[in-house]
Amino acid sequence: MESALLELRARLAEVSDVSRAAGVLGWDQRVTMPPRGTEARAQQLSTLGRIAHERFTDPEIGRLLDRAEPLVESLPYDADDRSLVRVTRRDWEKARRVPAELRAEMTLQAARGHHAWVEARRTSDFASFLPYLETNVELKRRYVECFEWSDSPYTPLLDDYEPGMLTSEVREVFAVLGPALAELVASAPEIDASFLRSGFAPDAQRAFSERVLGTMGFDGEAWRLDPTAHPFCTSFSNRDVRLTTRYHPDNLESLWSTMHEAGHGLYAHGIADSLSRSPLAGAPSLGLNESQSRTWENLVGRGRPFWEHWYGPLQEHFPSLEGIELDRFVRAVNRAEPGLIRVDADETTYSLHIILRFELEQELLEGTIPLEELPEVWNARMKELLGVDVPDDAHGVLQDVHWSGGGIGYFPTYALGNVISLQIWDVVRRALPDLDEQLAAGDLLPLSDWLRDNLYALGRKLTPQETIERLTGSPAIDPAPYLAYLGDKIASLAA
Amino acid sequence: MESALLELRARLAEVSDVSRAAGVLGWDQRVTMPPRGTEARAQQLSTLGRIAHERFTDPEIGRLLDRAEPLVESLPYDADDRSLVRVTRRDWEKARRVPAELRAEMTLQAARGHHAWVEARRTSDFASFLPYLETNVELKRRYVECFEWSDSPYTPLLDDYEPGMLTSEVREVFAVLGPALAELVASAPEIDASFLRSGFAPDAQRAFSERVLGTMGFDGEAWRLDPTAHPFCTSFSNRDVRLTTRYHPDNLESLWSTMHEAGHGLYAHGIADSLSRSPLAGAPSLGLNESQSRTWENLVGRGRPFWEHWYGPLQEHFPSLEGIELDRFVRAVNRAEPGLIRVDADETTYSLHIILRFELEQELLEGTIPLEELPEVWNARMKELLGVDVPDDAHGVLQDVHWSGGGIGYFPTYALGNVISLQIWDVVRRALPDLDEQLAAGDLLPLSDWLRDNLYALGRKLTPQETIERLTGSPAIDPAPYLAYLGDKIASLAA
Repeated sequence: MESALLELRARLAEVSDVSRAAGVLGWDQRVTMPPRGTEARAQQLSTLGRIAHERFTDPEIGRLLDRAEPLVESLPYDADDRSLVRVTRRDWEKARRVPAELRAEMTLQAARGHHAWVEARRTSDFASFLPYLETNVELKRRYVECFEWSDSPYTPLLDDYEPGMLTSEVREVFAVLGPALAELVASAPEIDASFLRSGFAPDAQRAFSERVLGTMGFDGEAWRLDPTAHPFCTSFSNRDVRLTTRYHPDNLESLWSTMHEAGHGLYAHGIADSLSRSPLAGAPSLGLNESQSRTWENLVGRGRPFWEHWYGPLQEHFPSLEGIELDRFVRAVNRAEPGLIRVDADETTYSLHIILRFELEQELLEGTIPLEELPEVWNARMKELLGVDVPDDAHGVLQDVHWSGGGIGYFPTYALGNVISLQIWDVVRRALPDLDEQLAAGDLLPLSDWLRDNLYALGRKLTPQETIERLTGSPAIDPAPYLAYLGDKIASLAA
Repeated sequence: MESALLELRARLAEVSDVSRAAGVLGWDQRVTMPPRGTEARAQQLSTLGRIAHERFTDPEIGRLLDRAEPLVESLPYDADDRSLVRVTRRDWEKARRVPAELRAEMTLQAARGHHAWVEARRTSDFASFLPYLETNVELKRRYVECFEWSDSPYTPLLDDYEPGMLTSEVREVFAVLGPALAELVASAPEIDASFLRSGFAPDAQRAFSERVLGTMGFDGEAWRLDPTAHPFCTSFSNRDVRLTTRYHPDNLESLWSTMHEAGHGLYAHGIADSLSRSPLAGAPSLGLNESQSRTWENLVGRGRPFWEHWYGPLQEHFPSLEGIELDRFVRAVNRAEPGLIRVDADETTYSLHIILRFELEQELLEGTIPLEELPEVWNARMKELLGVDVPDDAHGVLQDVHWSGGGIGYFPTYALGNVISLQIWDVVRRALPDLDEQLAAGDLLPLSDWLRDNLYALGRKLTPQETIERLTGSPAIDPAPYLAYLGDKIASLAA
């Protein structure tokens, strides 16, 4: 009877290998591939994706799950094997609901949409992108029909990134977040950050970032950092983590961007060995994953304690910071300033960009906004939410890649990540009462080890809600700690 | 009926995609992967290899071939589809002869053998490697039993690398080559090459190599060059060619090594688009592939015409060459000097290293040399063939990686490549009467284009013998042009 579990694990390991292999091809495509390799690479990725999907949705997986379920039911709820069977059952049922032709059509149209978007953004020409957006939205509607939902047709899309979460729950969180953030932004003082706008040699940025990364708790032989156009993090096992970043000589943003990706990387690196080559070797949701990138980027990387240790070394790497005092530097990197572009936004304004997109996505899906009016609606809401005037669609509705590839439902996870990061941070602070002193001494390991042992190691064994409950005592996503943190920050800047 | 061909092509394209994906994983493993990624990567590669093999040896491929054969028989012999069906039939019949368990055991023992060899070479300890070599040789004997052969049990091994070639044919070629080369080596003058033994900054080597590569006929957006420990070339399509090299500040070898890999790369790059994603998208044999790496490395890269153009730029890159005249440089890079290590050997002595290995491999397989006596036999034959004393096994029988992974039958292809390179070069010379002038003007494109149009574009449509016959008028591998070339070289050095 045990053989059902063995066979299940072997089949899932094979699917994992193929998916990770596709990950290597994706990394290579974005980091090292010569431009003319594009066409063959798309075919290779499509083939690997199809093989992984076929093998995962094979009816035999269902039969093995049927046979394995009674074998694991007496194990503890979070035992590896019981979790494997439970999580795989959910993934498998979900994956089988989507007909192969619809999946193939979505992949094809996503590629076409992406291609059209690149050109449309370059020329700031929404009209040329519109037909592709229409097709992708229509396909998403057909995708939604494959599932049952109670509160909103948006929920099945959200579920791909935040398993088990309802649209109504996100609405509740954002209903608190939106007005509170708008108020905070309005109260934020103007802060001089002119000294952060030139004089940062890329080589020095890389050297400094690598020094910091070296203290974050990675096994030194299990990661690498490479330059790329659009930074991301991926991993091919918990011991092969790839961080990417980009360097601009006119700012230091690569540093926080690298710490952000390193947060994702530490998550992947911390997943227990026993979950390797299984569907459990990941984060429970994008929101939880993002909570950790934000933790390392912001809660650590913009905190005064961190810079008490690192500001001296930073000044050694960048002579242009000579004469700028620590306090002034910390204030500048924590300033709040409304802007047009989501990826350039600071901690305080960032989630407002997300709330805009979350609302629009629901309206697109439900058809309550005609797609051709999207730019006008976008611009009006940007004015309303952030008080900024959008000069053209390239800096407005066309700025993000997500919709071009049919990635509707993804955006909320960024703001949820911010919110969750503080819920977990509060717990960390109670568990590590000397955290500030440790950070100020340059010792990131107690933090890194705690997060690995209490969160990262779990992988996808628990749902996002269960994972949050295990850490905080409640499954709810609660914006209060995040708002308190930002409130304290804005108050300290104004002081 | 046409559907059989379409379905066959689609299935073969999928197999090709999976194999190319494995290629990407292999490149990443040797060029960029963090060391701790090894274990997961081995599993990913094993899974992809198994999937590609399973899909290729599927009985359905045989049924599709049966249905496709009558559809293509009226096409010209070298038409894409007719060639596809013919070559796939041969590959498929061969692949199906080896039981899956034997194949898996060979893969496993090759990995173990490789691991043991790395350590054995490090400590120059043949005894510790012996049991692994025994296992690998025994597995090769079982592999050979899967096939029929007439002249020698070595033939099925050779056939993996040189399809259709008999061991007896290689013996005939080497029977001419061996004594003639020994004589040439004995007559070679001593030449001062002391100026080639220091002062070559790796950055300058890379810059110079990339300048040369830029003139060899590659689409500039279809290749890249990276440093690695053991240089190789691979490709993931005819527009994604990966060259690797290594730089030593104490010599200029990276330059010829890079031109060597670029020769392989031009072959891959020149394969006709119509053969993409098919079993025809490769070289007909390792010997033919090697003939082109040797052409670019030696026939072009050590020739006086090439250096008439490039020696000036080289001196600009390397101030240590100032005052060394072109003649002296050309003589030095063409010298013949017996040594211990195959990969460091010059053109004239190189094939003698191969002849030694070819003889030993047959004896290993037939059991006429007890494996434990291999080091003594090796050392005695090195003395006999090249007149050198082997100080230890690390510089003797343990120097090459091939046997550790069961790669028996591979070595002869290197020497055959040398021989074939001159057979083709003679044809090129007749086709391009102004070749020397073009090379001396730095114009490599007429050569590159000719080789692409007349050789590389064919891919694997023809057998090695048919390919050679199409170019030279005879299918035979003839050592005479190679020996004439080396004879002229040695004579000119002595002059």
